[in-house]
Amino acid sequence: MTNSPLTVLRKQFKTKEEEILEDFFTFLRIPSISSEPDYRAEVRACSDWLVEYLQSMGFKTQVWPTKGHPVVFASHLQAGSDKPTLLIYNHYDVQPVDPLEEWETPPFEPHVRNGQVYARGAQDNKGQCFYTLQGLKLLLEKDGKFPINIKLCIEGEEECGSVSLPEVLKAKKKELKADYLAIVDLSLRDANTPAITLGTRGLITMDLTVEGAKSDAHSGSNGGLLYNPIHALVEILSKLRDTTGKITIPGFYDDVVSISEKERAKYSFILDENQYQADFGVKPTGGEKAFSAIERAWIRPTLEINGIVGGYTGQGFKTVIPAKASAKISCRLVPNQHPDTIGKAVSAYIEKLAPAGISVKVNLHVGRGKPVRADANSKVVQAFAQAYSEVFEKPCEFILEGASIPIIPELTEASEAQVVLIGLGLQDDQIHAPNEHFGIDRIEKGALIIARSIELLGG
Amino acid sequence: MTNSPLTVLRKQFKTKEEEILEDFFTFLRIPSISSEPDYRAEVRACSDWLVEYLQSMGFKTQVWPTKGHPVVFASHLQAGSDKPTLLIYNHYDVQPVDPLEEWETPPFEPHVRNGQVYARGAQDNKGQCFYTLQGLKLLLEKDGKFPINIKLCIEGEEECGSVSLPEVLKAKKKELKADYLAIVDLSLRDANTPAITLGTRGLITMDLTVEGAKSDAHSGSNGGLLYNPIHALVEILSKLRDTTGKITIPGFYDDVVSISEKERAKYSFILDENQYQADFGVKPTGGEKAFSAIERAWIRPTLEINGIVGGYTGQGFKTVIPAKASAKISCRLVPNQHPDTIGKAVSAYIEKLAPAGISVKVNLHVGRGKPVRADANSKVVQAFAQAYSEVFEKPCEFILEGASIPIIPELTEASEAQVVLIGLGLQDDQIHAPNEHFGIDRIEKGALIIARSIELLGG
Repeated sequence: MTNSPLTVLRKQFKTKEEEILEDFFTFLRIPSISSEPDYRAEVRACSDWLVEYLQSMGFKTQVWPTKGHPVVFASHLQAGSDKPTLLIYNHYDVQPVDPLEEWETPPFEPHVRNGQVYARGAQDNKGQCFYTLQGLKLLLEKDGKFPINIKLCIEGEEECGSVSLPEVLKAKKKELKADYLAIVDLSLRDANTPAITLGTRGLITMDLTVEGAKSDAHSGSNGGLLYNPIHALVEILSKLRDTTGKITIPGFYDDVVSISEKERAKYSFILDENQYQADFGVKPTGGEKAFSAIERAWIRPTLEINGIVGGYTGQGFKTVIPAKASAKISCRLVPNQHPDTIGKAVSAYIEKLAPAGISVKVNLHVGRGKPVRADANSKVVQAFAQAYSEVFEKPCEFILEGASIPIIPELTEASEAQVVLIGLGLQDDQIHAPNEHFGIDRIEKGALIIARSIELLGG
Repeated sequence: MTNSPLTVLRKQFKTKEEEILEDFFTFLRIPSISSEPDYRAEVRACSDWLVEYLQSMGFKTQVWPTKGHPVVFASHLQAGSDKPTLLIYNHYDVQPVDPLEEWETPPFEPHVRNGQVYARGAQDNKGQCFYTLQGLKLLLEKDGKFPINIKLCIEGEEECGSVSLPEVLKAKKKELKADYLAIVDLSLRDANTPAITLGTRGLITMDLTVEGAKSDAHSGSNGGLLYNPIHALVEILSKLRDTTGKITIPGFYDDVVSISEKERAKYSFILDENQYQADFGVKPTGGEKAFSAIERAWIRPTLEINGIVGGYTGQGFKTVIPAKASAKISCRLVPNQHPDTIGKAVSAYIEKLAPAGISVKVNLHVGRGKPVRADANSKVVQAFAQAYSEVFEKPCEFILEGASIPIIPELTEASEAQVVLIGLGLQDDQIHAPNEHFGIDRIEKGALIIARSIELLGG
């Protein structure tokens, strides 16, 4: 197999590895934090960088403005209208970086340690976006063209809920029309096992604010008098799950479809709890006690408090009863839960729990998404599964993903394409956390998978 | 009564009011925030200012260094050893100012609106310290001397729990020796009713930290797997009080002494709930439902969460399961609860509540204090009560205070003096909160009370 298509591509990659890494670092250095308004200019600079990079590869580009951050669209349609079209989705925005003091090297100054690139976005999703581009480059450098038509949709608001994308998708249906849709933002189970994701959980997020007295008050003079909003918040939040981890919100589980034995057989339904402990420092003890760990992560919905703040949180102590306290909550959803229905149920239940002397307000966010299931037998899933198997030299597994890519249902609908969910993330990549990192070996594997899948779809 | 001692003093004050206010503003402009390490130099500058001011009045001063902020000690012993000595306690440090954005005028730029001086410390305790100094000045200006010996102990760490003072008090027993001890850091029930406080609640404060995974994790991939430390924190905190507001910590109420009908008759045991609502915007709905509002504020212990933080609390949203979450807790204590006993009981109970996959740590603070009761029949209480009655032209009430001055028991012991707790604070002065303020009329009343009490103690 010295001259297999894969061998040729691999050799090409190796030859240019240094240059590839340089480009990657440039991409990573742009602090495109989409959820923090102060970084607006940096997010824009990142989209500019992508446009220039894609143009230099021979793509035609468009920048679709939104109320938030722009979408970068690129197309290479030389294959002609008798050939199928693959639309690839990535995002170029990244998570915030706090707690900043826990980063071993600054989040926007990439460093390599033990073959891993450390930087915010190194995996999620700049790393995965970047190997996509490298895969395309390999093919263009090898053949001067693609065997199928290629479109790219790279958004800048995934980390703040893809707020603007749905509207854009509706307006750009013609541009987005495709036969296949690859979402490149997923993970493997472990570094050595190829895996394609057949579904993600849905998402609804919200803010909760609890208010008491009209201003902060002294907790000595007023302790026993004022109803402390932090206590009210804590009491409310503690009532959202019972002692078995079950979510207590009326109607929360009503639309959950239980998974059949036949469907379950398609998946590799195991979680290595020792590996998990090695990755995270603790056993997976969260969620509903009535279910196994992998069920809790894949096929059960969740309710998590993602942030809480109230009163004095600085150094020292302040004997204060604050005027207000607040929390951020997210729910992960499984088929057939709908984010709107769940959002309303959570919000109504929380508002009913307000004690006397306390007002409670829930603000449901607009960035929300339905749970997703892909068709294991579709041409696009089969092609990518073969590419994964070739690159890893192992049969490709099918898995599910606990995280959400809220935009997948809308992208599927806008493009009218068969969807495949792929990626090379690993559990311990520290995405959304300090010291995020991504292996250089995975930049190579990812580029090869993209290139081979396109060849297979064109064959 | 045209030439009563009070009339003379009042005239003196009115003549110099402008100059007095100028001095007050200078004192208020120094941001002596003791609990924030960044303000160390400013706290020091404030003690320097006091020293200079006291020396200009003819006091001998000493600055007692501590591991934290210095204690200013001043004495005026001209009356001679056959006359009694009054030791007066104040503090010159102030609370932090956050949330800064809620101040109508900057906290360290005093402004007068409707006869009220707005600034951090305007009441607590620079206002009360300042009228003490003015009262002394009035007497010195009138008579050139005091009828008794005067000592002042003005500390710089009250707002961070008087951490260093106990050690200083033990070392300076000789200097602090006195017959009477006036603690000038208390409040009235309303602006028109003179009142002396016969007791305060004790205090124990602590930090609570809850830790899960070794770093922050994505709440999609790990939701249902990791035990979220915010949930653990919320669950633990919600178990510290039951639905009737009763504190559930084993042994918490064991040492609480119920107050006799005879003792109760001494006090004005009423809270005007409508006035409270006008001051705070809400009715007093907190605390133990089994007790009346005033009982909850005066003679019942509390447990309050004074701060809580975990996860992402900035703008937008971050789908994170944080590695840790934390809270600050304080308990107000009544006779005969001991801060050490209660601290241990709370700490032990909390640590026992940690769920699997979560570690919990409680850090008890050293700044703590016992509850206090003063003797209504002592000479010092009687003298101050008469001075209050003269200045307000009404009989003086006896009240209790829900807040704590942890240092009173130690001060009483070090000075071997009869204690009186006085002050002119009001519920809506916004101490420990944005827009703290103090009435100029109370600077005058306070100065007159101090001056007249000293005359009465010397008579």
